[in-house]
Amino acid sequence: MLVIKIGGGETINIDAIIKDLKTLTDPYVIIHGGNFMMDTIVEKFGIENVMLTSQNGQKSRYTDQKIIDCMLLAYSGYMNKTIVFKCQKEGINAIGLSGLDGKLILGTRHKAFLAMQNGVKKIVRDDMTGTVEKVNVPLVKSLIKNGYIPVITPPVMTFNNEIINVDGDKIAFHVATALKAKTLLFFIEKEGFLKDMNIKKSLITNIKKENIDSLLIHAQGRMKKKLLVAKWALSDGVKKVYISDGRIQNPIKVALSQQIGTLIQ
Amino acid sequence: MLVIKIGGGETINIDAIIKDLKTLTDPYVIIHGGNFMMDTIVEKFGIENVMLTSQNGQKSRYTDQKIIDCMLLAYSGYMNKTIVFKCQKEGINAIGLSGLDGKLILGTRHKAFLAMQNGVKKIVRDDMTGTVEKVNVPLVKSLIKNGYIPVITPPVMTFNNEIINVDGDKIAFHVATALKAKTLLFFIEKEGFLKDMNIKKSLITNIKKENIDSLLIHAQGRMKKKLLVAKWALSDGVKKVYISDGRIQNPIKVALSQQIGTLIQ
Repeated sequence: MLVIKIGGGETINIDAIIKDLKTLTDPYVIIHGGNFMMDTIVEKFGIENVMLTSQNGQKSRYTDQKIIDCMLLAYSGYMNKTIVFKCQKEGINAIGLSGLDGKLILGTRHKAFLAMQNGVKKIVRDDMTGTVEKVNVPLVKSLIKNGYIPVITPPVMTFNNEIINVDGDKIAFHVATALKAKTLLFFIEKEGFLKDMNIKKSLITNIKKENIDSLLIHAQGRMKKKLLVAKWALSDGVKKVYISDGRIQNPIKVALSQQIGTLIQ
Repeated sequence: MLVIKIGGGETINIDAIIKDLKTLTDPYVIIHGGNFMMDTIVEKFGIENVMLTSQNGQKSRYTDQKIIDCMLLAYSGYMNKTIVFKCQKEGINAIGLSGLDGKLILGTRHKAFLAMQNGVKKIVRDDMTGTVEKVNVPLVKSLIKNGYIPVITPPVMTFNNEIINVDGDKIAFHVATALKAKTLLFFIEKEGFLKDMNIKKSLITNIKKENIDSLLIHAQGRMKKKLLVAKWALSDGVKKVYISDGRIQNPIKVALSQQIGTLIQ
């Protein structure tokens, strides 16, 4: 079992990834983002992007009902169905689901937290974001057993019947461990894990699990989170985590044969 | 088995319909539209609405890839996931699917047809619309068997791997007959079938199948299509077709007990 996370950036070559899926022999599940489309929608609707910076320096979009509605449009609507349609065109029998469908992904909403907003420190109490707690494994397994490829995207539900956004990388991690997947593959808009995110040549091709901690200090932004997720995944039974270039031709073949990209094991 | 079609109008009381679903004892499937949200999206994106009038007087939106993209946002995204979320909040284990997912609905694209566009007669060759041909019954049945309520919306796929829009009422008809449903229930923004669509008191509460043809001359626009769909459904094994008010409290109870609305049988 393989879990593939496709980033939501503008330059991700979704067509190339989907064409390459046919080279896989193991069953797989796709998780995807939709950030680029999300930004487009937020702009079209004239909604102000309020950015929060948490105490550990992580930036995130302040999420209220308007932003959740934009997620339903961008992630569960446009991106999910476009990927499903492109899969179907290639003969891949995809079914697209948000975390809401059949309570596929259940999570917990963040409690109040301290963050910087426009340079001002404040307690954020009503952010509609949270963490993943549970994956509806019987649903995913029954779809796979019946020959379908699940294509999964946020938002998700909480145990208290709220709708929240959760990080797509963390969904990928939780789905991978819940399904006992051996491989977790992230497609991003970089060559792999770059020690300096602005220098291609700083690509590290192989990382051992025990060295992740020492690299975390070099990691910036979303890359830091990917390393953390990789660490958790390897601790929870995943054997190989690939961070690889999603912008190129034959991205899956290139990633798994380690022509480009980072393998963490 | 019951098939419920929820219209996509602004005044449809989705919350009331969902609350009332819990009074049902038979299994059911939901089909929904999204016209109001669609209009909002088309406007936000600054896309021109090109209306076509077919030779039999039916008006429809000219559908190109831009309009299909708006459908993915409005129908498969916002409307579908909002209905699924509201169902889940009420303890109804809904799963939302477009016609693309698992090739749930397969159709045929319209060939070139004659239509009026801005008062000019033209041959329309590239409209991305069509008719329903096939429902993936094993997928719908396996979801129902596993305790899920399917919530289905356009667009759909063609046998030639194109993406097309099809009429939601016709999806409801095809799903109903494919599942051998005995009841088909349409929720609209009127009291039921009005002989004169502008006069509430012209509501006809009971229509016999053999009288549909004589009423078709009175029917206007979408109501005409609903009567036609009712006629087909009753010819193909459906026992009762309700056309009922989706704007009121307890809309399902009111419809099935025939307090308001039209029953065709």
